[in-house]
Amino acid sequence: MINFALLGAGRIGKMHAGLIAASPQAQLSYVFDTHSPSAMALAEKYQATAVDSVDVILQDSRVDALLIATSTDTHVGFIIQGAKAGKAILCEKPIDLSSSLVADCWEQIKDCKVPIQIGFNRRFDPTHASLQRQLSDGSIGELQQLVITSRDPDIAPAEYLRHSGGIFRDMIIHDFDMLRFITGEEVVQVHAIGSTLIDPDLAQFGDVDSVMLTLKTESGKLCHINGSRRCVYGYDQRIEAFGAGGMLQSTNPLPHAVSVSTAESTAAHSPLNPFFIERYQQAYQAQLDSFIQAVNDGTQPSPSFTDGLQAQRLADAAQQSLDTGLPVQL
Amino acid sequence: MINFALLGAGRIGKMHAGLIAASPQAQLSYVFDTHSPSAMALAEKYQATAVDSVDVILQDSRVDALLIATSTDTHVGFIIQGAKAGKAILCEKPIDLSSSLVADCWEQIKDCKVPIQIGFNRRFDPTHASLQRQLSDGSIGELQQLVITSRDPDIAPAEYLRHSGGIFRDMIIHDFDMLRFITGEEVVQVHAIGSTLIDPDLAQFGDVDSVMLTLKTESGKLCHINGSRRCVYGYDQRIEAFGAGGMLQSTNPLPHAVSVSTAESTAAHSPLNPFFIERYQQAYQAQLDSFIQAVNDGTQPSPSFTDGLQAQRLADAAQQSLDTGLPVQL
Amino acid sequence: MINFALLGAGRIGKMHAGLIAASPQAQLSYVFDTHSPSAMALAEKYQATAVDSVDVILQDSRVDALLIATSTDTHVGFIIQGAKAGKAILCEKPIDLSSSLVADCWEQIKDCKVPIQIGFNRRFDPTHASLQRQLSDGSIGELQQLVITSRDPDIAPAEYLRHSGGIFRDMIIHDFDMLRFITGEEVVQVHAIGSTLIDPDLAQFGDVDSVMLTLKTESGKLCHINGSRRCVYGYDQRIEAFGAGGMLQSTNPLPHAVSVSTAESTAAHSPLNPFFIERYQQAYQAQLDSFIQAVNDGTQPSPSFTDGLQAQRLADAAQQSLDTGLPVQL
Amino acid sequence: MINFALLGAGRIGKMHAGLIAASPQAQLSYVFDTHSPSAMALAEKYQATAVDSVDVILQDSRVDALLIATSTDTHVGFIIQGAKAGKAILCEKPIDLSSSLVADCWEQIKDCKVPIQIGFNRRFDPTHASLQRQLSDGSIGELQQLVITSRDPDIAPAEYLRHSGGIFRDMIIHDFDMLRFITGEEVVQVHAIGSTLIDPDLAQFGDVDSVMLTLKTESGKLCHINGSRRCVYGYDQRIEAFGAGGMLQSTNPLPHAVSVSTAESTAAHSPLNPFFIERYQQAYQAQLDSFIQAVNDGTQPSPSFTDGLQAQRLADAAQQSLDTGLPVQL
Repeated sequence: MINFALLGAGRIGKMHAGLIAASPQAQLSYVFDTHSPSAMALAEKYQATAVDSVDVILQDSRVDALLIATSTDTHVGFIIQGAKAGKAILCEKPIDLSSSLVADCWEQIKDCKVPIQIGFNRRFDPTHASLQRQLSDGSIGELQQLVITSRDPDIAPAEYLRHSGGIFRDMIIHDFDMLRFITGEEVVQVHAIGSTLIDPDLAQFGDVDSVMLTLKTESGKLCHINGSRRCVYGYDQRIEAFGAGGMLQSTNPLPHAVSVSTAESTAAHSPLNPFFIERYQQAYQAQLDSFIQAVNDGTQPSPSFTDGLQAQRLADAAQQSLDTGLPVQL
Repeated sequence: MINFALLGAGRIGKMHAGLIAASPQAQLSYVFDTHSPSAMALAEKYQATAVDSVDVILQDSRVDALLIATSTDTHVGFIIQGAKAGKAILCEKPIDLSSSLVADCWEQIKDCKVPIQIGFNRRFDPTHASLQRQLSDGSIGELQQLVITSRDPDIAPAEYLRHSGGIFRDMIIHDFDMLRFITGEEVVQVHAIGSTLIDPDLAQFGDVDSVMLTLKTESGKLCHINGSRRCVYGYDQRIEAFGAGGMLQSTNPLPHAVSVSTAESTAAHSPLNPFFIERYQQAYQAQLDSFIQAVNDGTQPSPSFTDGLQAQRLADAAQQSLDTGLPVQL
Repeated sequence: MINFALLGAGRIGKMHAGLIAASPQAQLSYVFDTHSPSAMALAEKYQATAVDSVDVILQDSRVDALLIATSTDTHVGFIIQGAKAGKAILCEKPIDLSSSLVADCWEQIKDCKVPIQIGFNRRFDPTHASLQRQLSDGSIGELQQLVITSRDPDIAPAEYLRHSGGIFRDMIIHDFDMLRFITGEEVVQVHAIGSTLIDPDLAQFGDVDSVMLTLKTESGKLCHINGSRRCVYGYDQRIEAFGAGGMLQSTNPLPHAVSVSTAESTAAHSPLNPFFIERYQQAYQAQLDSFIQAVNDGTQPSPSFTDGLQAQRLADAAQQSLDTGLPVQL
Repeated sequence: MINFALLGAGRIGKMHAGLIAASPQAQLSYVFDTHSPSAMALAEKYQATAVDSVDVILQDSRVDALLIATSTDTHVGFIIQGAKAGKAILCEKPIDLSSSLVADCWEQIKDCKVPIQIGFNRRFDPTHASLQRQLSDGSIGELQQLVITSRDPDIAPAEYLRHSGGIFRDMIIHDFDMLRFITGEEVVQVHAIGSTLIDPDLAQFGDVDSVMLTLKTESGKLCHINGSRRCVYGYDQRIEAFGAGGMLQSTNPLPHAVSVSTAESTAAHSPLNPFFIERYQQAYQAQLDSFIQAVNDGTQPSPSFTDGLQAQRLADAAQQSLDTGLPVQL
């Protein structure tokens, strides 16, 4: 039984609280949030204790693990405190918008030997994970090209996005992690182009809403990511792996579909999942199970802190490429 | 807030308990089961009271509704007792294996005016319900032909099936209800053929494991049902409606799928849901919501007791057709 | 090189003439039609000789084979004449609307030992043939159920249909042949229901436009055929074989498709082939190749005369079942 | 009736000869090839005259049009001669491997006012053309992103490819044309990456077999092309257009498909067309029809000479980007 303290009682914190409470191998002891009413409401629902300082949590030796779901700029501080207090850590992505801060963080905690997992939940999605496994099993031979499609259902307000770190650090970072997960290689070159085709206001602070990237890995594999902040037909998340022996495609799961054939067309009313919490519900569940398993086994969980750092570096490189118009070598 | 007593703490009773407990509009007060440890375990999980007699429940005026999930032969008795005690009733299908017993039951309760709903959950399945709605909305004009495919993932042991009432009353009864739900008409003629192609032991007690039926409705619409007790690729539940203006197809939802294209083929590893509890999870949820809504509104819920009786009569007719080799008029 | 005489210069005769002319192993020497201008126009196009009597053809020893594409009521006469003259015969379906006439014909020609093939072209369709081959190869184990969907794009005028022999002998006869081809068994019982849902005028002469059949084979396999004279979304021809080890589905080939995903739906504008000549173009080609091969090899071609007779008997049984309302044993 | 002279009696010349001969609006008068036996064989088949010099053709006033299907390095010469002789011209792609030679050619012929069409046949493919039309019709609103997948079934020998002009000029040029056709815009920036993942020998002469490109158009639309010289599952040619109002996908047409559902998977044996002549059969036909129509109407055909030049310039830019590692502005 892993004893969790949850840091952050916002939308995604609530989802994590529910998963922890429902797990037969976990229990939720504390909920921390700077906004006390949120912490208290969530704590009450799951018979946990609400706190407005993490000190109580860090000093309570019964707490095994922190699940960090606070705002991004507080992650590094909590990771360092938690690691030094000997707590296992499952931290939402991204670790921080600044790669150098993340690297500094790593310097401070790398000797702590606590299990640290970064919340790249898509690695645990049944479809994407199955693609990765079949590729590893050699079902299409050596990978040659990877194409990732990443389109959000709708764009957030410009004011929110102004502080998001930009499309690469905020949104495409998941795809960078998937690329590393699936290829099993590091990227050596990134080139990005982008446009503001959806919300022109983003140009005010140098951001874009539509991007295309090409990336090359150590062994010369070619990768493409295309991303959009708004996709009217729903949350579109696909991966295509092309190899010497064939192709694997992870397509959008369809909760249900009635196809209609008329004289004009054959149409399937196929609702995609509205957004990430619904789309990746099973992935969030499997992510928690995997973390618990690693803590129980005393092994390092995956994706690791370093995975978080590497994805951040790819986001930085993509931003730099977008800003300069030139490919960036890594 | 509807106050429920659950009768029956078996597999499907447990599922219903979970749904009631999770509903913001319902609470679970009692769990009854003749097997006390099952009742107690389930009651404890949801802070309800376990009882081994239904009298306490019937006499407790705070109880609004009974959810009957006991063995089939006890349904009629509990329905009569519940209706006379003024409780709303949501009863698992079938009401009883004997249509005449069901008709007798109806005579005894029809004046009670309590809401009674029969658990034909498939009417609430998002895909099937969408097909029915689009048909009603005229998207393919007047219905002409209906084809229902109904294949269970695996056959139960012959000893269990010996007491099941036969494939029509036990399994195809759901499809009879769907046929009535979708066509919106009564059936006037049934013809059934069957074979034991999966488990020859069923022949000992006159049952079959593979069936095909043709049915004709009042207005001359043609319907086909094919059913199988074992389908190696999973739980296959499809409906095809063919009309003057086109075709609607409700196909199997695919939780996820990776397609593999190689020199030999393009294959999608598409796991179907294992069986009815997983496949119709949303339907069970929506069924409960619909019942609660009807009780709150003081309207008669649907599918009604009469719907349960009519489906049973179709099952009887199908059995008679199989036994005699002749079509049966209704 | 097989030397052909074509009997019948109508729509389907023209198609056959084109196939013979294009075949590197065949040549077209004669075209016969009672309507001389048709025969002459077609003969001129392919440098053949037009005749208005078949005697010249039968007496010309250079003619190897007759392709009979005249009106149905003349088939038996030409088959007998051709067989007695030692010509190989490829005859369009059906042999005749009367099974007893077909049986009589067989008595007269069975000792002639000429190759005779009946034009059940669908056996040569790449998709259907692949399904049959994969079934024979054991890819889904023992067949248990077969479902055939057979929907024409549009209904012919009632006046034409009045002399067609009825929907079973005119249209569904192809599906009876597919059933025998795929199951590899004879049918022992037929039951048919039907309605006039498209053209009420058909009722005047006892015909229907919408039918459903259940058929049982020698070993107890269950088969279903549904047929419609009008299908607004196109020519719908599908076969589903369900077996102990899985399912094979032969679906409609799509010449091309652009799928459109919008906020409302995902729609594929998938034009089906307009009708049989376009849909079964490859099948007609392969049918001719197979006939030529058999003639060259001196083997009996397939589907044989007897296959034509058996399909006719199934059509008779279906008509009798529709007329009496009772299943017919064979 | 358009009177054609065919220049080039190789594989693709033979196909064009067949199309011209089959067209009710065209006839084939001459076949020219430097290899006389090829010209003679083809000319004999279609009752045309074989010549080993184009002078006869150019001086014969009855010749309306030249179809140029000779080797690439002879195209420019024949175009100039033909245009100056007043012949309409349908020339296979590419016009020439050198954009500057193509530009020079244009200078010499631009005042000739003869109809000139370049053989970018894919514009006439029913699927791709339907996508372009639906996009123009506004079915998905303003285009934002375009993704083109272009994979050949197998790689040619390195010795052949050595003189091909490189993958961009030889193969991807079709995709550059599709991009211009679909976006209706000019490209302002190209970036290309590539690897030799299939045949390492290509590196000897600076070519690659696997490429990915990003391209930006005048209005900021983002485009991606991925190309591979070998695709084991067949000739893979897809286009995905993503817009403000939805997505259009042109997928691979499937001549026929039997799907196999077993306990392990659902697999469709879906043979793709082997290569371009089969895949784009209808496109070649429609291309010829379009050319004939333009000549008859006295309008300039499309795609025009300038379209050929622009595609060539994109190929040059892609090659330069691959060589330098830097994006190229246009």
